[in-house]
Amino acid sequence: MKKGCPFGSHRVIEPKGLLPQAANKIDNSTEIYSNEILIDVLTLNIDSASFTQIKESCKNDAEKVKERIIEIVNDKGKMQNPVTGSGGMLIGIVEKIGSEFPHKDLKVGDKIATLVSLSGTPLKINKIKKINLENEQVDIQGKAILFESAIYAILPTDIPEKLALSALDVAGAPAQTSKLVKKGDTVCIIGGGGKSGILCSYQAMKNTREKGKVIVAEHSVENAKRIKELNLADELIIADATKPLEVYQKVLEKNNGKLCDVTINNVNVPNTEMSSILITKDSGIVYFFSMATSFTKAALGAEGVGKDLTMIIGNGYTKGHADLTLQILRESSEIRNLFEKLYA
Amino acid sequence: MKKGCPFGSHRVIEPKGLLPQAANKIDNSTEIYSNEILIDVLTLNIDSASFTQIKESCKNDAEKVKERIIEIVNDKGKMQNPVTGSGGMLIGIVEKIGSEFPHKDLKVGDKIATLVSLSGTPLKINKIKKINLENEQVDIQGKAILFESAIYAILPTDIPEKLALSALDVAGAPAQTSKLVKKGDTVCIIGGGGKSGILCSYQAMKNTREKGKVIVAEHSVENAKRIKELNLADELIIADATKPLEVYQKVLEKNNGKLCDVTINNVNVPNTEMSSILITKDSGIVYFFSMATSFTKAALGAEGVGKDLTMIIGNGYTKGHADLTLQILRESSEIRNLFEKLYA
Ligand SMILES: NC(=O)c1ccc[n+]([C@@H]2O[C@H](COP(=O)([O-])OP(=O)(O)OC[C@H]3O[C@@H](n4cnc5c(N)ncnc54)[C@H](OP(=O)(O)O)[C@@H]3O)[C@@H](O)[C@H]2O)c1
Ligand SMILES: NC(=O)c1ccc[n+]([C@@H]2O[C@H](COP(=O)([O-])OP(=O)(O)OC[C@H]3O[C@@H](n4cnc5c(N)ncnc54)[C@H](OP(=O)(O)O)[C@@H]3O)[C@@H](O)[C@H]2O)c1
Repeated sequence: MKKGCPFGSHRVIEPKGLLPQAANKIDNSTEIYSNEILIDVLTLNIDSASFTQIKESCKNDAEKVKERIIEIVNDKGKMQNPVTGSGGMLIGIVEKIGSEFPHKDLKVGDKIATLVSLSGTPLKINKIKKINLENEQVDIQGKAILFESAIYAILPTDIPEKLALSALDVAGAPAQTSKLVKKGDTVCIIGGGGKSGILCSYQAMKNTREKGKVIVAEHSVENAKRIKELNLADELIIADATKPLEVYQKVLEKNNGKLCDVTINNVNVPNTEMSSILITKDSGIVYFFSMATSFTKAALGAEGVGKDLTMIIGNGYTKGHADLTLQILRESSEIRNLFEKLYA
Repeated sequence: MKKGCPFGSHRVIEPKGLLPQAANKIDNSTEIYSNEILIDVLTLNIDSASFTQIKESCKNDAEKVKERIIEIVNDKGKMQNPVTGSGGMLIGIVEKIGSEFPHKDLKVGDKIATLVSLSGTPLKINKIKKINLENEQVDIQGKAILFESAIYAILPTDIPEKLALSALDVAGAPAQTSKLVKKGDTVCIIGGGGKSGILCSYQAMKNTREKGKVIVAEHSVENAKRIKELNLADELIIADATKPLEVYQKVLEKNNGKLCDVTINNVNVPNTEMSSILITKDSGIVYFFSMATSFTKAALGAEGVGKDLTMIIGNGYTKGHADLTLQILRESSEIRNLFEKLYA
């Protein structure tokens, strides 16, 4: 068996020199290199933006959606929507493990979810068995390859699959919160009522005790109410995060005129950089998990108000992120019930 | 005297609720609030993108350029090019200091450069005295206001103004390098041959001694040669930073198969996120100073290759950045001479 590039560049067909995610076409042959694994795929969880685009272009006809998915995968060797650029995740059973695959925790027969995007994962579909137009899940007969650098989670037996997946999708956020937030800190979670926000709020409450304070800023009264009922904040603010002065004044009110040590941004709309920057104290940290963050708005915004902050780009991965996130679902039956109702 | 908002929102005319930089029109009246200062302006250094746009739209006619600048400032109360959105910096003499302005180092009569963008600075022009179509400098008779949160540097007497300004423009980069790089670290400076890159390389050489290593990755043979002559790197790589695998392999070659502790990205072109991520070791730091950085490419890129990195958005400001940067020009006559030749 030959050894491949740790990042999978040996499977790039064109253009050469790029990594699989950026490539147009990759090699999906099922013979593995010594540092790869082969997965017998059960279900694709297509990224929501991608699935919506395909459904619309196929006028909600399930058979046409199936054909389109097969066409994309045959063409590119991976399930990357050419319009949205996005992929999704998959669930499958480990079928083969190359002798030089470095993660020795994995065994043939393990059921795993991949935590790298389908947009960079070699995939071959033999047959689509079932498609659910509502929940973006596609059951298939097919194979996928994971590279040495790819990340995955062995699915737990005590948490239903869909529930585990919905939480794993945002696992980076609570895990980074845990790394950044210390005992005694004042933390603000902007967009704390959403999926990633709830997990971050839980983790921040845990890490800041006994002396710290967690402030959740939410947009809708409804989501704020939920946070209160779940006891996931010391203070609640209802505000529009695109209005920096409004958020700033409300945070000062709730925090005796003081700013925050750490701010976590979990919103799903643009133009919330300035709120995050204003409410954070000098030498504090802003963690931007939101993919709607603009690099230049953050960089120029902080300079514009003379703020000496560390602003972190929300990496979706950090060591142990899957375990930490699943553990929250085990520890908090309230969050587990809520996630089951909302996302599973 | 009334006290204004620390960020200047009291001078926003419309739309209300935004900060001065994001606003369409701000109040440029020269009566100051108690936490503001009034500057007697000498010279505007118009941002290069803005000046080029104005010159082109005025067909290089100096009189027309003057009129256009006056028109913009009368209209918006600040020198923000409506097409490019950008501003620039100014040089002037401190004329009045409000009693509640917090920085007590400043005296009436000090000559300062503002280090926040003109795009958020109240400005009134009485007369344009001289315009230089080559170097983007506009000598005026006029007044500007700085808010409590604004940053500025008192101009040194031992360094010519233009030279000081050219270095202050990128002062955040070497100052952040100094905060992030420790003795013994292996550091790669991508785009190390440019203006900010040279300052970062100098600072990294200083901070890593005796045991560390500085690798400079440059695009052109010419810039690389300069770095070698200035002794600003332990190792030099000539590579295209938009080609991640090329950069990755060359770094491994120069560093005994090992990755870097800290990577500083100073290029001025897009699509260099992946190179920066690949060459940095797990738990290492990537500092993106380049404004061409894409937030999503960095976040998804790191996840895609399972890298547990801290990725930092290059804030243009950090405490002491102006002093540190001017100090480099004092310490290194080679860099000073080069900057004088290239940028002053
Ligand atoms: N960095 C990564 O690797 C990574 C990975 C996955 C996801 N993400 C990103 O993380 C973000 C959040 O994902 P999610 O699944 O947690 O989304 P979500 O469940 O939709 O949550 C978003 C939250 O933001 C709130 N919000 C929206 N507009 C707001 C405003 N103007 N002011 C204050 N709050 C506002 C929403 O409140 P209302 O419902 O009340 O409006 C909601 O609670 C997304 O941008 C997503 O792209 C990043
Ligand atoms: N974050 C902030 O607050 C802030 C403030 C000011 C400036 N900036 C940004 O900082 C960046 C650098 O500014 P600067 O004034 O230092 O620019 P610069 O002097 O033009 O330097 C850019 C350097 O990047 C190199 N480069 C270009 N393409 C490359 C490639 N494909 N591979 C490797 N190297 C490449 C250039 O080398 P060649 O000449 O050989 O091509 C040059 O040495 C800009 O993006 C600017 O917007 C940020």
